[in-house]
Amino acid sequence: MPEAISESTIKGAVPDILCDRFSDEGWVTTSARVPDEIELTIYVNSKELVTVLCTPIKLNCLVLGFLYSEGIISGTRDVASMRVCEEDSMADVRLSNAEYKLPTLRTLTSGCGGGVAFKTQGQKVDSGLVVTPREVLSLMKQFQEQMELYRLCGGVHASALSDTKNLLVVAEDIGRHNTLDKIQGECLLRGLSTRDGLLLSTGRISSEMLLKAAKMQAPIVVSRSSPTGRAISLARDLGIALVGYARGRRLSVYSHPERLGRST
Amino acid sequence: MPEAISESTIKGAVPDILCDRFSDEGWVTTSARVPDEIELTIYVNSKELVTVLCTPIKLNCLVLGFLYSEGIISGTRDVASMRVCEEDSMADVRLSNAEYKLPTLRTLTSGCGGGVAFKTQGQKVDSGLVVTPREVLSLMKQFQEQMELYRLCGGVHASALSDTKNLLVVAEDIGRHNTLDKIQGECLLRGLSTRDGLLLSTGRISSEMLLKAAKMQAPIVVSRSSPTGRAISLARDLGIALVGYARGRRLSVYSHPERLGRST
Repeated sequence: MPEAISESTIKGAVPDILCDRFSDEGWVTTSARVPDEIELTIYVNSKELVTVLCTPIKLNCLVLGFLYSEGIISGTRDVASMRVCEEDSMADVRLSNAEYKLPTLRTLTSGCGGGVAFKTQGQKVDSGLVVTPREVLSLMKQFQEQMELYRLCGGVHASALSDTKNLLVVAEDIGRHNTLDKIQGECLLRGLSTRDGLLLSTGRISSEMLLKAAKMQAPIVVSRSSPTGRAISLARDLGIALVGYARGRRLSVYSHPERLGRST
Repeated sequence: MPEAISESTIKGAVPDILCDRFSDEGWVTTSARVPDEIELTIYVNSKELVTVLCTPIKLNCLVLGFLYSEGIISGTRDVASMRVCEEDSMADVRLSNAEYKLPTLRTLTSGCGGGVAFKTQGQKVDSGLVVTPREVLSLMKQFQEQMELYRLCGGVHASALSDTKNLLVVAEDIGRHNTLDKIQGECLLRGLSTRDGLLLSTGRISSEMLLKAAKMQAPIVVSRSSPTGRAISLARDLGIALVGYARGRRLSVYSHPERLGRST
């Protein structure tokens, strides 16, 4: 008998939720799939750092990426060991520096999923990267085709890192910010550089998304949705081309349009 | 000369952002409006509690609602004074209890805008409220017509509280959770009860949205979007009817369908 892939093994989705659908034809009971959500508590050097609500896929990437983007580690060399236990909803990280003093001040971000950021300063992006609008729109199309969890059950955000030709990493999560942390973490684990990368995201671009992009030294950030005023100011200051409403055959550029070949 | 309402006075939106739009017709430079985002630092009894990224509308409601839903106050009587200064991006709250010990443990939520929650337990909702699906869909239509900031510039979430006939309070913010905190805060300020209310939201319903609804004793939560698996479990436990994908003439009910007249 051939082995069938059971729906219950699809990571990140809860299968077979009973639900009652109403329409003009009346009620019908059916089964639905929805995105999964867990509370992951991150311990660093045996101290509780934070609890992140997230979708249980690529949790090791999420933890590493979160620690990196918050400045707690500057690379995998700073991590002596890491154990992520989904059943117990916890990640146990030992830093190479056992005396590391954990930060406590937190900013509540506007974004789905990161949720909190320790205060960070943006670092200016130094890059000569230029792409055409059509290259961006073509990458956006590829990106949408690779959102597996979204296609399966909706209700999640996705982000991707591209070298402008191909998508290198794609991450999905109920949390907008978690998708960027997962990308950052996967790049650390795989030894991929984020520098000169192009970031794609389904979600709105708020200031912390922009700060995460700057930390990655990614000079172009593209979203299907809108940026905030503060994200635009930051993008202008940090040398990042911020592209919004990239849908179908259109897009809008809010900063550094020269990176998309628009002469100013 | 009649006084014209200047676009620059529209709260919550940044007007006249220059942007370059690309389409099949080529490039055009135009002006756009985007949602505003500020960092609001909340001080309680002169101690820094947290920094929230949010849209600067109804900030007093946001601060009160946040403190209430995190269990730091149980009503306006616990607040001796509150001063919100948008220019300095800070809110200064003095509690009636000057000795109050602030909590420090935070959960990073998945949701746009709340971002962080101090650990809370859900409280079961005790209510006999029943509505018809058509009433829900009609409220959803009213709700969408009242999203002023969204219509103006996109890129924001909205939530509303209804007594099942009318919308009592509507709030918009770049942060999904902030919209619920603003509703909670406005109800406290106006002396409106949230009990037996129906909550409407544009955003996905994750566990913390559900916990905020339970805190309000709101027995029905309706979203245009998807719930997470964890939100569905919580809704079942807490006696809340969780309605997703309420769009046009359809909706899906994931828990307590009897509150929508569906016999089980």
